[in-house]
Amino acid sequence: MSQQQLHSSNTTHQAPFTTSDKEYVVGADIGGTNLRLALADMTGTIVAKWSVSTVGIRDAHIVIGLIRDGVEHLLQQASAPRSSLRAIAAGAPGVTDVNEGIVIATSYLMGWREVPLRALLESALGVPAAVDNDVNIAAIGENWAGAARGTRDFVFLAIGTGIGAGIVLNGRLFRGNGWTAGEIGYMLVPGTPEEPVERGKPGALEDIVGGEGVKAQWQNLWRENSTTLPRDATATQIFDHALDGNPLAQAILQKSARTLAYAIYNISLILNCPLFVLGGGVGMHSGLCDATRKILEQRGTRAQPQLVHSTLGADAQLMGAIRLALDTADSRLSLSS
Amino acid sequence: MSQQQLHSSNTTHQAPFTTSDKEYVVGADIGGTNLRLALADMTGTIVAKWSVSTVGIRDAHIVIGLIRDGVEHLLQQASAPRSSLRAIAAGAPGVTDVNEGIVIATSYLMGWREVPLRALLESALGVPAAVDNDVNIAAIGENWAGAARGTRDFVFLAIGTGIGAGIVLNGRLFRGNGWTAGEIGYMLVPGTPEEPVERGKPGALEDIVGGEGVKAQWQNLWRENSTTLPRDATATQIFDHALDGNPLAQAILQKSARTLAYAIYNISLILNCPLFVLGGGVGMHSGLCDATRKILEQRGTRAQPQLVHSTLGADAQLMGAIRLALDTADSRLSLSS
Repeated sequence: MSQQQLHSSNTTHQAPFTTSDKEYVVGADIGGTNLRLALADMTGTIVAKWSVSTVGIRDAHIVIGLIRDGVEHLLQQASAPRSSLRAIAAGAPGVTDVNEGIVIATSYLMGWREVPLRALLESALGVPAAVDNDVNIAAIGENWAGAARGTRDFVFLAIGTGIGAGIVLNGRLFRGNGWTAGEIGYMLVPGTPEEPVERGKPGALEDIVGGEGVKAQWQNLWRENSTTLPRDATATQIFDHALDGNPLAQAILQKSARTLAYAIYNISLILNCPLFVLGGGVGMHSGLCDATRKILEQRGTRAQPQLVHSTLGADAQLMGAIRLALDTADSRLSLSS
Repeated sequence: MSQQQLHSSNTTHQAPFTTSDKEYVVGADIGGTNLRLALADMTGTIVAKWSVSTVGIRDAHIVIGLIRDGVEHLLQQASAPRSSLRAIAAGAPGVTDVNEGIVIATSYLMGWREVPLRALLESALGVPAAVDNDVNIAAIGENWAGAARGTRDFVFLAIGTGIGAGIVLNGRLFRGNGWTAGEIGYMLVPGTPEEPVERGKPGALEDIVGGEGVKAQWQNLWRENSTTLPRDATATQIFDHALDGNPLAQAILQKSARTLAYAIYNISLILNCPLFVLGGGVGMHSGLCDATRKILEQRGTRAQPQLVHSTLGADAQLMGAIRLALDTADSRLSLSS
């Protein structure tokens, strides 16, 4: 109330900041199971979060509707008018043409093909939008505010159901000629099956390292008398069980760690990359990170990349999306000025 | 004679070009067995070549002395004065800090450590110099005048005694954080031994695909009654023998091709790279290229990079060095103007 009075009595153009003067951006993390949004101020500080299930939702227009609802909700939560929104950026779980703002293809979970996500967001929200692959966006987040802060060359490895890499070279994301750089799920290392895999099916590497692959290995090895863990355990439960000393689970953890170490070793040779950041639901498990680091260390000095955890965890993508939204707001500002 | 008269009677500053007005650059390819030089005019056309054996020579100052001798010889051959030399660029068989102009380390053949090659060349020849790793320089050559002309993303694979990659991304060489990007000799793929290798010893990948590895496999399999080829055959002789139908040689060629295909497949996944150019004495063998391409094609559409031969062959490094020398002459010109 007193602020309102102060405001109205102010005769200069430089009004003191009230809540309604603040500007915001939205970062969005579009996933096959959840849609997560965060509202941040122009310093990148998150002021509100919102999420909703996307299980069973495939239609991009429905996802856009959910995002619009979520943005309204976030602005209300922050008592901010619609006009205070400056930009939005979204990470999508698929191959994304950043220049055109189009999600070229996602996995079978979403089934998107050639979705003009940027244009849909801009028309739904009336603000500039940017889109990128979700793993790339998580790498931006770790580079801005996480485990790779200030690093010019690193690889972010997201291990969840499958595995993907966000590659930062010379301080910039490297997305590749056809936007698929870092799609390493099909990589071949000692121990992976050599048979070609049908497109859309899990690749050789994620079959061993990814969450679904870990679960499948457990189901194959599982015997009622050899464990207290159920046959349908999750990857992180299986890795916990390994740390508790169960030999079956330890064998699976070791195989995953060895396979992951070989993949990291190969990438570090090719790119001469000194830092790898492990993220994603499965990648965040300390047992996997520790076992993988030990195997890398045994390989000697030729390529000895540092292996660390994501420090942003599940927020890496949201933070990256916020960073991208801030950049988008800035670039549109400089274009119009 | 008439040109000389024309020249002397010409009163403007724009004298017509005589032989002595022409300017040149030198490209140098420093190898463990040969030093090769080429003199080129400012359009990049080679006007003279020179080479000398470097077998048994480890001292960088002796190599510099040989280069100085060679440059004198080339200039004489072209009837060009010393003052017509504008720049030199050299490729060295080792990890090279391009910014500082220092060869950080070469293999045991040369045994160089921290050799300030650029400064040595500049002081020996009195012209601006540039240095880079030999495989990177070959990639520059293929990009300028060879199989990757006009391509913004490709990988040049040099397979000789060992294996190395020159990586061009977004139209620029990617050299890596510590100048070792593309040092893929230690890469691990299905079929390579998993045991860590001592530094300096051949890596897992080159042990199967590189020339020395191919020879060693032949020596292991060789039986007097099963082949007319001697036990100490070279890799290209063994691949020729495979194309002639010898089963032992065919098994080795197939194993090399499969291992190489897996390495290319992995690199193409990581970098989303559409073109691979095979070069080097072993890599130029059509049997290896054809067999590798066939295996890549069988892996399906997920990553289907094009695999082609180097079109410059043994001249790839010389051409790349000439291109680099031309750029060096240009950049020094623009710095001084």
